[in-house]
Amino acid sequence: MLTYLQHTAVTSLSAVIQATGLRLRVSSGSVEVSRKSPVASWLCAMLYCFGSYILADIMLGHSPIDYFHNNSHILLASAVWYLIFFCPFNLFYKCIAFLPIKLVLVAMKEVVRTRKIVAGVHHAHHAYHHGWFIMVITGYVKGSGVALMSNFEQLLRGLWRPETNEILSMSFPTKASLYGAILFTLQEAHWLPVSKSTLICVFTLFMATSKVIMTARHSHGSPFALIESWLCHLLFGSPLGGEEAHDHHHAAPAATAAPASPAKTKEELSEGTRKRKTKKAE
Amino acid sequence: MLTYLQHTAVTSLSAVIQATGLRLRVSSGSVEVSRKSPVASWLCAMLYCFGSYILADIMLGHSPIDYFHNNSHILLASAVWYLIFFCPFNLFYKCIAFLPIKLVLVAMKEVVRTRKIVAGVHHAHHAYHHGWFIMVITGYVKGSGVALMSNFEQLLRGLWRPETNEILSMSFPTKASLYGAILFTLQEAHWLPVSKSTLICVFTLFMATSKVIMTARHSHGSPFALIESWLCHLLFGSPLGGEEAHDHHHAAPAATAAPASPAKTKEELSEGTRKRKTKKAE
Amino acid sequence: MLTYLQHTAVTSLSAVIQATGLRLRVSSGSVEVSRKSPVASWLCAMLYCFGSYILADIMLGHSPIDYFHNNSHILLASAVWYLIFFCPFNLFYKCIAFLPIKLVLVAMKEVVRTRKIVAGVHHAHHAYHHGWFIMVITGYVKGSGVALMSNFEQLLRGLWRPETNEILSMSFPTKASLYGAILFTLQEAHWLPVSKSTLICVFTLFMATSKVIMTARHSHGSPFALIESWLCHLLFGSPLGGEEAHDHHHAAPAATAAPASPAKTKEELSEGTRKRKTKKAE
Repeated sequence: MLTYLQHTAVTSLSAVIQATGLRLRVSSGSVEVSRKSPVASWLCAMLYCFGSYILADIMLGHSPIDYFHNNSHILLASAVWYLIFFCPFNLFYKCIAFLPIKLVLVAMKEVVRTRKIVAGVHHAHHAYHHGWFIMVITGYVKGSGVALMSNFEQLLRGLWRPETNEILSMSFPTKASLYGAILFTLQEAHWLPVSKSTLICVFTLFMATSKVIMTARHSHGSPFALIESWLCHLLFGSPLGGEEAHDHHHAAPAATAAPASPAKTKEELSEGTRKRKTKKAE
Repeated sequence: MLTYLQHTAVTSLSAVIQATGLRLRVSSGSVEVSRKSPVASWLCAMLYCFGSYILADIMLGHSPIDYFHNNSHILLASAVWYLIFFCPFNLFYKCIAFLPIKLVLVAMKEVVRTRKIVAGVHHAHHAYHHGWFIMVITGYVKGSGVALMSNFEQLLRGLWRPETNEILSMSFPTKASLYGAILFTLQEAHWLPVSKSTLICVFTLFMATSKVIMTARHSHGSPFALIESWLCHLLFGSPLGGEEAHDHHHAAPAATAAPASPAKTKEELSEGTRKRKTKKAE
Repeated sequence: MLTYLQHTAVTSLSAVIQATGLRLRVSSGSVEVSRKSPVASWLCAMLYCFGSYILADIMLGHSPIDYFHNNSHILLASAVWYLIFFCPFNLFYKCIAFLPIKLVLVAMKEVVRTRKIVAGVHHAHHAYHHGWFIMVITGYVKGSGVALMSNFEQLLRGLWRPETNEILSMSFPTKASLYGAILFTLQEAHWLPVSKSTLICVFTLFMATSKVIMTARHSHGSPFALIESWLCHLLFGSPLGGEEAHDHHHAAPAATAAPASPAKTKEELSEGTRKRKTKKAE
């Protein structure tokens, strides 16, 4: 049944709706951009829907807009983009944001993600027979898609947040894509004693269940936290305990943001000095 | 006569002079950069002259520096760059900035722009027979050139203005390139009942006339404003009236710039609080 | 003996250790990133080690991760990265930062750099027979490597410093790579009456000696300063004298940083006005 789901158009459509409606639409400023510049908004929607194909094409040295020759896919995604941003009374968005429908869309998206990772690893295996690293990277970018280029996608909408990126602080889908890409590469190299279809089935079920539970609970905790904590302790000597890691994570953006603007800080300091002098004069 | 103009070296040379002299030279900080780092300035000049080829090559998956094997073109553009930035008494720049000469250069540039859009659409049609979207995109980047990568071109000169880009707030040539690319794609697909040469002639005349009038009047208004206003009202439900749209446009950069620096704002707020407290103490 | 050095694995290994240990490790924030996100740190290390291959592949239109099919090279570089960042008691890093060992590593790196420039020029000559500019550019990016994409490498670590880049203010190795690429291109075009092996030998000796002396003395002065000063005076009419050039250089980042934030400046101004008014009211 999962194999069947993998290849239906309904699944792809769900993924497109999920990407445009539940991720682009909710990101800050996207509605204003759609009013001010429909072209920029449409381009962002295309990145959200087909970012994984674009990145994988770039990684393998093909044309980045190669996927755009699928006219029907682009038209469908454009129609979804139009309905989500310009439907009267915001009806379409309200429909897909209704929790039960949202959960189905989220689950479908994970089915598509797994299919993309497998396709990415397989494609890279075809091009580079023993390029294990290339296979992992291609599967990874195919699974993560627009998340990996979020800095530049935001730049397109006039936002710039250099203090973080998806590799520096990975979200659950990005992490899972990385681990999935590693698993499927090991399987392709025959280092993992399972058949590909079993692995696909298990991985899809795991991803869909995790994501549905996380969405239903509005939780951002990762199911990998415990294993990661132990592994990091073993490999990199990190202190054990998720709490501390979490604190670190929150403190970091501020710390890294500070040195990014030394000129400004200096200006502010001198402004401060000037003000103090003015006050003294008073 | 227009067809003849399309293929003369004089037209290409005019376009190079226009790009380097009337666009790079007048952009903020370009003269300082040419003094401080001639290599960066030369690279910017090459981007202004051949940015459209570079972008189109990237889009179609070729080498981005493929155009640089035309040694004579590069040498010519380099000579123009040298004359514009380092000519004694600034003579060359004063010449081309003289209004009648400027108008001729501006008109020639539009002739070249049309030729590039047509070539881009044709080239993409060759590579992807039914890839209508790819044809539009290639024609668009061929027509717009460096404008589409202005953020990164400015970064090369040490400037960074993330709050806007050419897709978010399109200038007249970029908009016209998009519409032109759509028209020429429709023609290539035989959905437009005109011959290619007629369309080229009409489009070139329209572009050259509009641009010459706009340059002579120092105006930034777009001849598309009325049609766009109606179309946006019809498709996207935007409120009618150019004035309001214009106001929106001006207000936008400030609005989008604000969320880009939440850390700073917070700092400023806390600074404000601190000051108020200091005053109270006084 | 130099020719022999060019092709040994020891030289490559030294270059990898130099890149990861003496350049990535000492750059600000890299240790924190390695603790917070080992994946981002590993990716940075790969960019430091193989950035030149990635850039050259992009320039010639190949897959940017093409080099990653050399599994053994990637594994070796990963091992070096691990030892440098996570070795108990920081032993490995202390070893390679010990001056005599450091000098050997630095010298080896320059041997590899020359080899890369020659390979880049040769490779481009193969692809574009008379593309002299392409040969120079390819040799240049092969020699400079990650330095040319330092802005984006820093972005990966959450830092953003748009006010400068490696082309705007070239360091000694980047400059030497450019001059080397020009020399080797002239040699390849038979415009330089020396054999390739002689040129390689002389250039390697010059680079290694200069870099070792500069490292031993902790100096940042360039051996090209005098020639450049005269050449710039002749070609670009710059005033003679290194001092002034140095002053300019220091003043520039502040000047270019200022216009990068017009919105902020305006806010600060209005804030200033508001404050003055408040004071008057008091």
